[in-house]
Amino acid sequence: MSRTRILVTGFEPFADESINPSEIVVRRLTGSLERGDVELVTAILPVSFRRAKDSVKTLLREHKPEIAMALGLAPGTPCIRVERVALNLMDARIPDNDGVKPEDEPIEPGAPTAYLATIPVKKIVRKLTEEGIPAVVSNTAGTYVCNLVFYELLHHGYTYGYPLRAGFIHLPYLPEQAAKKEPHSVPPSMSLELMIKAVKVVIEYVVSGDTTGQKPRLE
Amino acid sequence: MSRTRILVTGFEPFADESINPSEIVVRRLTGSLERGDVELVTAILPVSFRRAKDSVKTLLREHKPEIAMALGLAPGTPCIRVERVALNLMDARIPDNDGVKPEDEPIEPGAPTAYLATIPVKKIVRKLTEEGIPAVVSNTAGTYVCNLVFYELLHHGYTYGYPLRAGFIHLPYLPEQAAKKEPHSVPPSMSLELMIKAVKVVIEYVVSGDTTGQKPRLE
Amino acid sequence: MSRTRILVTGFEPFADESINPSEIVVRRLTGSLERGDVELVTAILPVSFRRAKDSVKTLLREHKPEIAMALGLAPGTPCIRVERVALNLMDARIPDNDGVKPEDEPIEPGAPTAYLATIPVKKIVRKLTEEGIPAVVSNTAGTYVCNLVFYELLHHGYTYGYPLRAGFIHLPYLPEQAAKKEPHSVPPSMSLELMIKAVKVVIEYVVSGDTTGQKPRLE
Amino acid sequence: MSRTRILVTGFEPFADESINPSEIVVRRLTGSLERGDVELVTAILPVSFRRAKDSVKTLLREHKPEIAMALGLAPGTPCIRVERVALNLMDARIPDNDGVKPEDEPIEPGAPTAYLATIPVKKIVRKLTEEGIPAVVSNTAGTYVCNLVFYELLHHGYTYGYPLRAGFIHLPYLPEQAAKKEPHSVPPSMSLELMIKAVKVVIEYVVSGDTTGQKPRLE
Repeated sequence: MSRTRILVTGFEPFADESINPSEIVVRRLTGSLERGDVELVTAILPVSFRRAKDSVKTLLREHKPEIAMALGLAPGTPCIRVERVALNLMDARIPDNDGVKPEDEPIEPGAPTAYLATIPVKKIVRKLTEEGIPAVVSNTAGTYVCNLVFYELLHHGYTYGYPLRAGFIHLPYLPEQAAKKEPHSVPPSMSLELMIKAVKVVIEYVVSGDTTGQKPRLE
Repeated sequence: MSRTRILVTGFEPFADESINPSEIVVRRLTGSLERGDVELVTAILPVSFRRAKDSVKTLLREHKPEIAMALGLAPGTPCIRVERVALNLMDARIPDNDGVKPEDEPIEPGAPTAYLATIPVKKIVRKLTEEGIPAVVSNTAGTYVCNLVFYELLHHGYTYGYPLRAGFIHLPYLPEQAAKKEPHSVPPSMSLELMIKAVKVVIEYVVSGDTTGQKPRLE
Repeated sequence: MSRTRILVTGFEPFADESINPSEIVVRRLTGSLERGDVELVTAILPVSFRRAKDSVKTLLREHKPEIAMALGLAPGTPCIRVERVALNLMDARIPDNDGVKPEDEPIEPGAPTAYLATIPVKKIVRKLTEEGIPAVVSNTAGTYVCNLVFYELLHHGYTYGYPLRAGFIHLPYLPEQAAKKEPHSVPPSMSLELMIKAVKVVIEYVVSGDTTGQKPRLE
Repeated sequence: MSRTRILVTGFEPFADESINPSEIVVRRLTGSLERGDVELVTAILPVSFRRAKDSVKTLLREHKPEIAMALGLAPGTPCIRVERVALNLMDARIPDNDGVKPEDEPIEPGAPTAYLATIPVKKIVRKLTEEGIPAVVSNTAGTYVCNLVFYELLHHGYTYGYPLRAGFIHLPYLPEQAAKKEPHSVPPSMSLELMIKAVKVVIEYVVSGDTTGQKPRLE
């Protein structure tokens, strides 16, 4: 039986944070998403414009996944954010983990200004909501390393035909991260268990979809 | 061995909600807070100014608890809110479950305008935070039925000497409640497991404190 | 003709701010609130627990105002906040301008835990709203120097019979203050003109009320 | 002397609103932006996907403006939002004023997924901030009629070479709009005077820039 190869990525910690929920979710996913029809490849990406770009390209060439889902942290979001748009733009408010802080530079010079996610974002949000998981469609993944990874996944898919389906999920803080913030402005958070459930729901929804022979395109 | 008697209350659902996290937390607490030195009494209160007041008085007279903790829902809060002040005021924005909507009326005519919680709210928030649970001290429990219950617990304690320690905890929405809200304004939420853990941490902190012979007073 | 004496106070800048909208509003009020039936006394208070307390007492003894309105800044509020409750509590998150940072201390030991404003806060908010000025009733003026001034005005009124009417108005940032904040979290603001209009509306509403011979009491 | 022709558009009211700040700002701009080197053309657009698209195309063909600035309302924003990205996407949460509610449809089938604004958005935000006007760069203009107008302006510019410079400014509520909202969730607002000043600052900054011979491109 043929198996669907899925790449799922998280990020290292960055800025003042000592943990990154996307890393923990990805590590916990290995082993917990056991399905005969799925081959899971996971990776933790550096929060570095240059190295994350290289890593994504290497991972895609090496594993040729049919589906790619990247996860990242969106400080302050109260719920799961399913990203709809990746921009060909790097514009950092704070330096990345290499100390690099690009301003208004394209990720891939000459490539399209933006790509739309090749997963059905609105149906996925509806599915998450039905499962009792707070979620929204988001129209901006920012202009930091999260957006770069999302853009690279889609650029590769639109250019080479794989991954056929690529998406980006922004996660809230974990409760233990929110607990460490200034007491007068505690941000929203979400439990690790619910994050893992959310990511599984998304992956299973995308896997179950009929993607045979589809070209990356607008949903 | 003498046991500390603790009253813990939650609320029925109200307004458009079909569940109330405070009710579920209280029901789950029974059995899960098993300590030889604690006798737990629980109750689910009606979201009714008149009937909640009667219930609290009856519960206090009947059980004479040393400690009383009331729980309620604070729509929109991103974290556990440990309330510091109960006001002698009823001022409802929406009718209660009996259709009653008091405006600017005292709860107990002639009684003090406000009481401070008789649990150490700042130490409790510090303890919750250390345990990785997002929490803040709140200076207002509102002017709805939550505040009424909090006021009645303190008024009774200051008047009759028991409960020696009384507090009020406001809980966020559960994720499944937040998931049902308008997609353009999903509110923050917290998992049931973390809420239960939070309430246990609070109760165990209050129980462990030396309250022997203390009169209700400022922390 | 007898004139109503009104004390209106603002505050110096504090924390990282170089201006305080409450100071500017008070300075602009002098001269612009010209009515034959009103005698306006204004003062700018230090953001110091000790010195603000002394100043308020001195001002009240010296001028014996019938009405007192104190103004302060509430960072982050999107609208005029008409305060309903003053607490007998000092609990500072940041030091005051004297470097003093009280924790959980009463303002007036032995005095009531709280006073309710002696101006009709809900009617005032309705009036402001009718005039097109965004406003809410607030149930907490915090536990910093703003609350201390509010408490002292009410404590004096309840103790000595004047000011018969006392209230506290929290103002948003001015636009030029908000413009200086972090670009990823610009707070709400309000124009100076609208703030001045709001304070005039409040004062004229309170002056026009029949307060003759009234004792300070719940609205 | 040759004059720079500038098209500035606002919108009619929509949804539950009886006024739209963008319309009022545009009407007030006529006459107040008097410069010998500028020829101002203004228009109020319908909040209709179909009719707004037609109007924009007609206005551009008829007036061939060198610069086009569109204004719209962003409910809930606390400051001026200078939009950076227009998406080739219509996805309405509420019907437009014609009762039409497109879902996930492209504005211009076959055209690019997104365009970047052809005004220097970051420099403009810096300029606004220096003038004491709270402002941010925004990475999403939504997927409603505002975004459609922004996309059409850029699509025309990138296709036909004019307008050379096009941008979109999202405005907060006016205070009188915010005052009518639910008292428990008053949104931020901005005075009409400050909005007008902001729009003038933006237009003058764009006019003063050396745009001779420039092709629409990334800033």
